[in-house]
Amino acid sequence: MSEVMTSDLLSVAMAAAAEQLESVIDSLIAVPPGPEARVFEAMRYGTLNGGKRLRPFLVLSGARLFDVPDALALRVGAALEMIHSYSLIHDDLPAMDDDDLRRGNPSCHIEFDDATAILAGDGLLTLAFEVLADPATHPDAEIRCTLATSFARAAGAAGMVGGQMIDLEAEKLEATPELITRLENMKTGALISLSCESGAILGDAGADARAILRDFGYDLGLAFQVTDDLLDVEGDEANLGKKVGKDAAAGKATFVSLLGVEGARREARMLVDRAIARLEGFGKDADAFRQMGYFVLERRN
Amino acid sequence: MSEVMTSDLLSVAMAAAAEQLESVIDSLIAVPPGPEARVFEAMRYGTLNGGKRLRPFLVLSGARLFDVPDALALRVGAALEMIHSYSLIHDDLPAMDDDDLRRGNPSCHIEFDDATAILAGDGLLTLAFEVLADPATHPDAEIRCTLATSFARAAGAAGMVGGQMIDLEAEKLEATPELITRLENMKTGALISLSCESGAILGDAGADARAILRDFGYDLGLAFQVTDDLLDVEGDEANLGKKVGKDAAAGKATFVSLLGVEGARREARMLVDRAIARLEGFGKDADAFRQMGYFVLERRN
Repeated sequence: MSEVMTSDLLSVAMAAAAEQLESVIDSLIAVPPGPEARVFEAMRYGTLNGGKRLRPFLVLSGARLFDVPDALALRVGAALEMIHSYSLIHDDLPAMDDDDLRRGNPSCHIEFDDATAILAGDGLLTLAFEVLADPATHPDAEIRCTLATSFARAAGAAGMVGGQMIDLEAEKLEATPELITRLENMKTGALISLSCESGAILGDAGADARAILRDFGYDLGLAFQVTDDLLDVEGDEANLGKKVGKDAAAGKATFVSLLGVEGARREARMLVDRAIARLEGFGKDADAFRQMGYFVLERRN
Repeated sequence: MSEVMTSDLLSVAMAAAAEQLESVIDSLIAVPPGPEARVFEAMRYGTLNGGKRLRPFLVLSGARLFDVPDALALRVGAALEMIHSYSLIHDDLPAMDDDDLRRGNPSCHIEFDDATAILAGDGLLTLAFEVLADPATHPDAEIRCTLATSFARAAGAAGMVGGQMIDLEAEKLEATPELITRLENMKTGALISLSCESGAILGDAGADARAILRDFGYDLGLAFQVTDDLLDVEGDEANLGKKVGKDAAAGKATFVSLLGVEGARREARMLVDRAIARLEGFGKDADAFRQMGYFVLERRN
């Protein structure tokens, strides 16, 4: 009973954060007059599309641990969501994963065209750093620079971009749990981990707190990926807003193909347990993070 | 006679700067072990390919005006060159300008593949901001943030990315000198202008000096584009390392198609004269910038 309550309260909190976040992104991407308007429209299409806003919610939850105003956390959350959205736009391209559907709608390159989608992704990635470096994000420029370098490492070739490269190379490699873990830690874990750590950066917390939240985020991110693989096997297309069974059809190695459905479920549960155990020192203030762990295990989309 | 001397000295100075720059980029893009190596190799391929390094040379020239150490300017120059290179990698893709040849070599997507080229571009754009925000680029975090926001504005949807969007839309629009000027100011001018201004940012020069060098850079950048259009008509393929006659074959509006060859030559000369006149207050220290004006008028590739 108490978990149902928790889960309901979490949904309300996430929906409220998502609404605030969309309003921030809306104000950060204004469409200008002139023929360049098209790329701005594609940038809006790729970000203002009703995602779960998991990453911004994690930033907000972390920021509240360190008494950082929501307004700052929402800008960092917007930057994270821009980078997440750009990666989806580029990953969906025919030259990459060739996905026509994203969150139940035509992918950006279907709604616009391939060239516009490439440019929209480039524009969003660039805008994320403009937002981070702007004084409105934090009065202390050292903190803004720490955010920018942390974002660049998580999103770049040593992080998300490198993870997508491994994903494309993976069919030539021997699939092992170690390879898939490394791939997913880079491709999605680095950005989710940074989402959990960002509040501590904004709050100028010590290296210890940052490391704990970063590790929490890697566990949470990997659990999220394991349940993603499970949803591709067991999920409902209408709920998910994307096709299911894609991994198996593509002969792609996933946590489910390597560990089986039950093994993958155990792995997700273990990761969430470990993640939550890391939060011991934070007391009740970190309940939003703990609830996110349960959310990941129970999610249906 | 004195112009030939100038031009020779400039070539020597540019070659020396290019060598230093390549060594900085080389150290900033180390190939790791593991299957993500491929994207790092593509990033190196797209940047360490013997470009003219015009932009880093402009940063160095500006930095010397304000007694900024070369080591800092070279890092900013490397970031500029990463952004310039990423834009070429993405522009060359089949979905965009579909160019197989770049600087006399196979384009990145030909040497690797489309997906790797998209990721290499993404990785370079991200790395540029990592370099800018790193304390090694300048001890003052406010200045690093100013660099990052200036770069993002010049490179993003309100600058270079928006210019490429207009370029793709241009065939649907009425070609006028105003449209082409706006297109080129966004697509290439903003980054060249920023190259000229960056030294003043690093040197914490006042708003007046920054504005003068920014305006100088826009004139120089537009002159560069006009001579680019002229080289597409009159240039030598072997010298250029790319095909000529592409604009006319594509029915593309250029300064040459709008103004004629003689008109375009006059326009380039006018722009360089105006650019150099802007430097009046800087005295002899700004000779490198003045020489760049003549270089643009005389260039053969």
